[in-house]
Amino acid sequence: MSDRIPPPSVEDRWLDSVLARYQVPPGGAVHLGPGHDTAAVRVEGGVAVVTTDVLVDGVHFRLGEATPALIARKALAVNLSDLAAAAAVPLGFVVGGVFPHPADHRLFDALAEGFADAAGELGCPCIGGDTNVARGPLVLAVTAFGRSGPLGVLSRSGAVVGMTLSVTGPLGGSLGGRHLRFTPRVAEAQALARAGVPAAMMDLSDGLGVDLARLCRASGVGAVVDAEAIPIHADTHAAAAASGESVLHHALGDGEDFELLLAHDPLTDAQRTQLRTEGVALTQIGEIRPASEGLALRAAGEPGPWPGRGYDHLI
Amino acid sequence: MSDRIPPPSVEDRWLDSVLARYQVPPGGAVHLGPGHDTAAVRVEGGVAVVTTDVLVDGVHFRLGEATPALIARKALAVNLSDLAAAAAVPLGFVVGGVFPHPADHRLFDALAEGFADAAGELGCPCIGGDTNVARGPLVLAVTAFGRSGPLGVLSRSGAVVGMTLSVTGPLGGSLGGRHLRFTPRVAEAQALARAGVPAAMMDLSDGLGVDLARLCRASGVGAVVDAEAIPIHADTHAAAAASGESVLHHALGDGEDFELLLAHDPLTDAQRTQLRTEGVALTQIGEIRPASEGLALRAAGEPGPWPGRGYDHLI
Repeated sequence: MSDRIPPPSVEDRWLDSVLARYQVPPGGAVHLGPGHDTAAVRVEGGVAVVTTDVLVDGVHFRLGEATPALIARKALAVNLSDLAAAAAVPLGFVVGGVFPHPADHRLFDALAEGFADAAGELGCPCIGGDTNVARGPLVLAVTAFGRSGPLGVLSRSGAVVGMTLSVTGPLGGSLGGRHLRFTPRVAEAQALARAGVPAAMMDLSDGLGVDLARLCRASGVGAVVDAEAIPIHADTHAAAAASGESVLHHALGDGEDFELLLAHDPLTDAQRTQLRTEGVALTQIGEIRPASEGLALRAAGEPGPWPGRGYDHLI
Repeated sequence: MSDRIPPPSVEDRWLDSVLARYQVPPGGAVHLGPGHDTAAVRVEGGVAVVTTDVLVDGVHFRLGEATPALIARKALAVNLSDLAAAAAVPLGFVVGGVFPHPADHRLFDALAEGFADAAGELGCPCIGGDTNVARGPLVLAVTAFGRSGPLGVLSRSGAVVGMTLSVTGPLGGSLGGRHLRFTPRVAEAQALARAGVPAAMMDLSDGLGVDLARLCRASGVGAVVDAEAIPIHADTHAAAAASGESVLHHALGDGEDFELLLAHDPLTDAQRTQLRTEGVALTQIGEIRPASEGLALRAAGEPGPWPGRGYDHLI
């Protein structure tokens, strides 16, 4: 006169299906994997680095234009880009999903497979989550955590007058498709930290125009950037041809570059060699100045006003 | 010929406004507070306990019926209830918000105040987040983290045949309003862990009917519950009067009780005394049985079938 244990609910099964595809590696940092009220990770050094980014259909991607696999990958990658900004070593992530009503099980399945593949490719296991169905757009809220690297937890603070400003790669034109396929600069960040380079660091998610202002506000400094020094991504030319704006406008304002912006003391020869050996190419774009000087864009040696604020998700 | 540093964007300001209301306590576990790409917390013992829960307007609350302050409080409290299930000590939380388009700044402000108040009341600082605006319902995705307590990270696994099943309080009728105002059993969980009581633990979010099945699946065991032993919350009578169902039906199926369900060895006298001193009242409701026996509900000494699965957010 007793039932067998009832099967898991539909809600429970979505996460199960992510996890069935990507087993948490044994012997790693995961102390308690999914299937409980919490997950737990061992944090060497005792400092857990945390970041969260929410992606919404119609704002950050469009279902139908991007595949579920690419959407899931981006939802994880943008968070790993934030961990890279701290030069943290990724340990795991959780995902909270809101799926459009009525539940589309093919979408569930494709996203589950996408998260599992991205977890494998980007080296960061899924350790838990929460699933809901509601009348509204697809929402994927990922929170990723890691442990701090050899320089501790790098942040936007720490830039000092006289330091050099550099970026890890070319900017602009990301919305042509690169924003769905970029590789977060996790390895580069760790190489930079091992070489003792960054004093302040952030990832360029909203464009150099707005993100440099954030770094400067957090550090209490100003900056001057050389327009000619900004590395322009090849994708930017198509964007500029389509919009009629300059490539510089796109490089500063498009956003979703997911390169790292850092302030650092001038590189020593040893640091240059080490970075070259590790395959990290820094491009110097400017200099940290006193806060009283604000932000300036220097073209042909002449400082001019700082152009705009970049992409603001609220505007 | 240079601009001052541009002001923060609307997006940046929402989190700023949460944080301006609730300063992260100095000298606590927060290693890097908000305003950067990541936040960081010091984790004594080196194990970070993590949980995430997403609340959606129309599913978990209704804007207009519940105040923004209560909604924000619930979004944090459900996560702290999960940390309680692990007997973890809360250290901080991040919140990812999706606000309905067009942005309603009064709603922003009321939710910011609600999160700040809840952080203070429940003793868990907000250390970061992400804000978006989209055409859809309000979504609040909270991820909370803590450090493990004296028994390590408790989970749904660990229940062994012969153990006692207990709950920390009365069940049922929560949807009459208690689900918005409950106190997560964080203090009780830590007292239970200090007394060395729980072998397996979870919080009752979807109702004993479905949640006991989850604990049993995770532990690979069955269970028998005495219907007469289940503590019935006073709120359940109003719910039963309205629905025509039994109070037992409501106690098993309403969900959102946010009491703890735990499996443990019979209490020693010393444990009873310690729990009484700490103000923790356990109610024994049943016993862990072999998996082959499945789940059973015993009434008047006779085992009967396990009633239903409780509330499933997808159904």
